[in-house]
Amino acid sequence: MKATWPSRYTRRAIAMKSSAIRELLKVTQRPDMISFAGGMPAPELFPIPEFQRACEKVLAEQGAAVLQYSTTEGCLPLRQFVADDLKHQGINVGPENVLITGGSQQALDLVGKLLIDPGDLVVVEAPTYVGGLQAFNLYEAQYLGVPVDHNGLRTELLEEALRAKPKFLYILPNFQNPSGVTMTLERRRELLSLAAQYDVPVVEDDPYHELRFEGEHVAPLMQLDSENVIYLGTFSKTLAPGIRLGWIVGSVDVIGKLVQLKQGTDLHTSAFNQMVAYEVARGGYLEAHVKELCDVYRYRRDVMLQALEEFFPAEATWTHPQGGMFLWVTMPVGFDCGELLKAAVEEKVAYVPGHSFFPDSEDGTRHMRLNFSNAAPERIREGIRRLSVAARKQMEETRSEFDFNLTGGMRS
Amino acid sequence: MKATWPSRYTRRAIAMKSSAIRELLKVTQRPDMISFAGGMPAPELFPIPEFQRACEKVLAEQGAAVLQYSTTEGCLPLRQFVADDLKHQGINVGPENVLITGGSQQALDLVGKLLIDPGDLVVVEAPTYVGGLQAFNLYEAQYLGVPVDHNGLRTELLEEALRAKPKFLYILPNFQNPSGVTMTLERRRELLSLAAQYDVPVVEDDPYHELRFEGEHVAPLMQLDSENVIYLGTFSKTLAPGIRLGWIVGSVDVIGKLVQLKQGTDLHTSAFNQMVAYEVARGGYLEAHVKELCDVYRYRRDVMLQALEEFFPAEATWTHPQGGMFLWVTMPVGFDCGELLKAAVEEKVAYVPGHSFFPDSEDGTRHMRLNFSNAAPERIREGIRRLSVAARKQMEETRSEFDFNLTGGMRS
Repeated sequence: MKATWPSRYTRRAIAMKSSAIRELLKVTQRPDMISFAGGMPAPELFPIPEFQRACEKVLAEQGAAVLQYSTTEGCLPLRQFVADDLKHQGINVGPENVLITGGSQQALDLVGKLLIDPGDLVVVEAPTYVGGLQAFNLYEAQYLGVPVDHNGLRTELLEEALRAKPKFLYILPNFQNPSGVTMTLERRRELLSLAAQYDVPVVEDDPYHELRFEGEHVAPLMQLDSENVIYLGTFSKTLAPGIRLGWIVGSVDVIGKLVQLKQGTDLHTSAFNQMVAYEVARGGYLEAHVKELCDVYRYRRDVMLQALEEFFPAEATWTHPQGGMFLWVTMPVGFDCGELLKAAVEEKVAYVPGHSFFPDSEDGTRHMRLNFSNAAPERIREGIRRLSVAARKQMEETRSEFDFNLTGGMRS
Repeated sequence: MKATWPSRYTRRAIAMKSSAIRELLKVTQRPDMISFAGGMPAPELFPIPEFQRACEKVLAEQGAAVLQYSTTEGCLPLRQFVADDLKHQGINVGPENVLITGGSQQALDLVGKLLIDPGDLVVVEAPTYVGGLQAFNLYEAQYLGVPVDHNGLRTELLEEALRAKPKFLYILPNFQNPSGVTMTLERRRELLSLAAQYDVPVVEDDPYHELRFEGEHVAPLMQLDSENVIYLGTFSKTLAPGIRLGWIVGSVDVIGKLVQLKQGTDLHTSAFNQMVAYEVARGGYLEAHVKELCDVYRYRRDVMLQALEEFFPAEATWTHPQGGMFLWVTMPVGFDCGELLKAAVEEKVAYVPGHSFFPDSEDGTRHMRLNFSNAAPERIREGIRRLSVAARKQMEETRSEFDFNLTGGMRS
C-alpha cells in the first residue's frame, strides 16, 4: 500500500489556507491590471548601479568568505550598522543584540518558534499584518484582536485582552500594515505600562518607520522599554525586498536562543547578500536613498488621497497615513469588499479585502487595503477611478436589495 | 512586574541546545587550527569571476525584477534547470514539482512543518545528519535510529522501526553525512518495498550525489518510487553554500502545501540569488565545475586515507567513501571521542565527535566525523598526524586505567 501524503500532514499544514493576497497576485501580474494589492516598493527606485558596484567589490575583496557557510548571527559589519542605525532612533543596543534574518517574515517565524506552543494566545491589532498571522498560524497560535483607530491600537480596550494571559502582544506602531495609522506616544506609554503590569512581552514589528513623509517621529516601543520588547526591522522597504534581509533586536539571552532556533531553520542568512547590502547602505547612502523614497511615496499617497476624494462615494472614508505604503478604506455598513473584488478585477484593478487582516476572517468585510508605493501616479489615479466605478455599482445593488427588503422582500 | 523572556519560551526552544559543531566552529576559526569539523567546501574553488559576471548580467537585464518581492515557489528558469538536472538522474519531474528553498536546511524545516506534529516518530539512520535532527527537533519529533554499515542503512533492521508507525523515514543514501557510506541499490529497493508495505513515506536528502569520485551512480530513491518520496537537493556543495539555495522535489500536491508553509516562513527565497546561481550554473558550467571539485576532493580524500593508514593506531578503522565530503573513524570499544576532542584542540586539530549524529547522544562515543573537502592536502596530512598523537595518548591512558581496573583498582 502506498502512503498518501495528505494523510501525513500536520495539523498546522492542514489548517493552512492559501492567502487572499497570494491568489490575487496571480491576476495582478497581467500588465493591463492596476494593482493596489501587493505591498511592493517602487521597482524603478531600486539602486541597481549601487548593487552592481557592491557585488563586484564584495566578491573581489571577500568572495571566498561570503560564498562560504557563515555564522548564524549574521555578519558583524551589518549587525553593527543595524545597531548604529537604531542608536539614532534612541535604542541603545550593540551588534550582540542583533540577529540577521531572511527578511522580517523569517523574523516572525523565529518569534513563533521562540514563543508559541500550540494553543498559546497572541494579542494582535485588529486589523494586523497578514504575514504575522500566517507565521504564527504555523505554531498554532490563538488570537485576541484589539481594535485600531486613527491613533493606533485602542489601549483602553487592551486590558481585557491582557487579562486572558496571552503569550505576547504583536504590534506595528508605525504606518501600520494594513491601516496606515501610527500609534501616538501617549498610547505607546499606556500599552507598555499595561504590558508590564500584566507581565506580557511585546513584539514590535517596524518595517516602515524610515518612510515618514511628514509629522514627528514617535519613539519606538523598544526605546521606551528595552527589556520587555523584541524589535523587528528590515531592508525590504528601504533597499530592496529581493535581497531578503531583516533583523531581530533583543536582549543577549533572547538573541542567543533565537540563534539556536535559526540554526535549525536555515543555518544562516546569505553572507553575500548581507555584505552587499552593507556596502550599498553604508556611508550615508541609505539615508539619502530613503529621502528620495519618501518624496516619491508622499506624492503617490497624495495622488491616491486626491483621487479617492474625487471619485469615491461620499459614504466611504479612509485613513491619511503620514508614511509607509498603505491606506485603509472603510465602506458603509453592509458593504462587502470581498464581493467587490470580483467586480474590481473585471474593471482591471485589484486590492486586498479587509477581512484578510483580521484573525477572525468574519471581520473587516467593509474595509480594503490600498497600496500607494508601487504604481505610477497616473496609474494610481486611473486605478482609483476604476475601483470607484465597481464600488458605486455595488453600492447601488446593495441599496436596491436593502430597499427591496424594506418594502417587504424576503431577507436572504 | 517585568516579563522574563525565558519564562515565555516554548517547549522546543527550551529543549534546544547549542550544537557541538557550532561550539567547535568558534575554536576552529583560529588560523593555527586544522579543522576537519565543518562541512565546508574548498573556498579556493568557488567560481568567483563567474559570480561577478552573473551578478552584473542579472542586475543589468532584470534588476528591478530580482530585487522585488517574488513568488514563493521560486524562479521558473531555476526550477526548470533543477528539473532538467534531475531528469539526467532518471527522475522524471517538471518545474511544477520543484520548490526553491533557503538551502536544504530550510527544506528540512519545511519538511518538519509539513509532517511533524509534536511527539511524531521519525525513523533516521544512526548516525544521521545533525542538521536534520536540529530541524526536526523544532517540531518536537521523537526518533528511532536504524544502524548504518558500509552498505548504508541496515534494511534487515528497518522493519522493526517501521512497525512503530513512524510519520516518515529520513535518509541520506549517497556519501552519507556523517559516515560517508552509500546505500546499495539492493538495499534501496528493500527500503522502498518495506516503506510501501508499512505505508511510511520517505524523505531523501541528497546533497552530495554530484560529488562522486569513483564507482557507479546508484539510482536515487525518488527514481525508484516517485510517489512515496520527497527529494531534497542543494547548490551548497556544488556552487557555493553562501548563496543559500536548495530545493524540494515532490508531487504537485506536496509542493503546493509546502509553498503555503514557506509563505508563512520567509515569503520566498531571494530571486536575485536564484537568477545569479542559474546564470552561473547553466550552459554546462555546473557539470564542468563539479568535475573539477571531484578531482580535488578525490585527492584530498586519498591524502586523508593515506595519513590515517600511516599515523593512526592499528585498532582504529574508517570508511572509504566513494564521494562526498566526510569519512567516519571508529575507535576501539570504550574510547571516548568526545573526551578526545579537548586533547585534539590542544594539538590544534578539530573534528566532530560521533555522538552529535545520533538521536540518542549516548551513542556514537567511539566515532568521529572527519571532513576532507575543506583543508589543503598538506594540512590534511598534518592534521591527521596531530589527531593521531592525541588519540594514541588517550588510548594509552584508557589502557592503563583498564589495566589498573583489571589488576584490582576501583572501577569508576
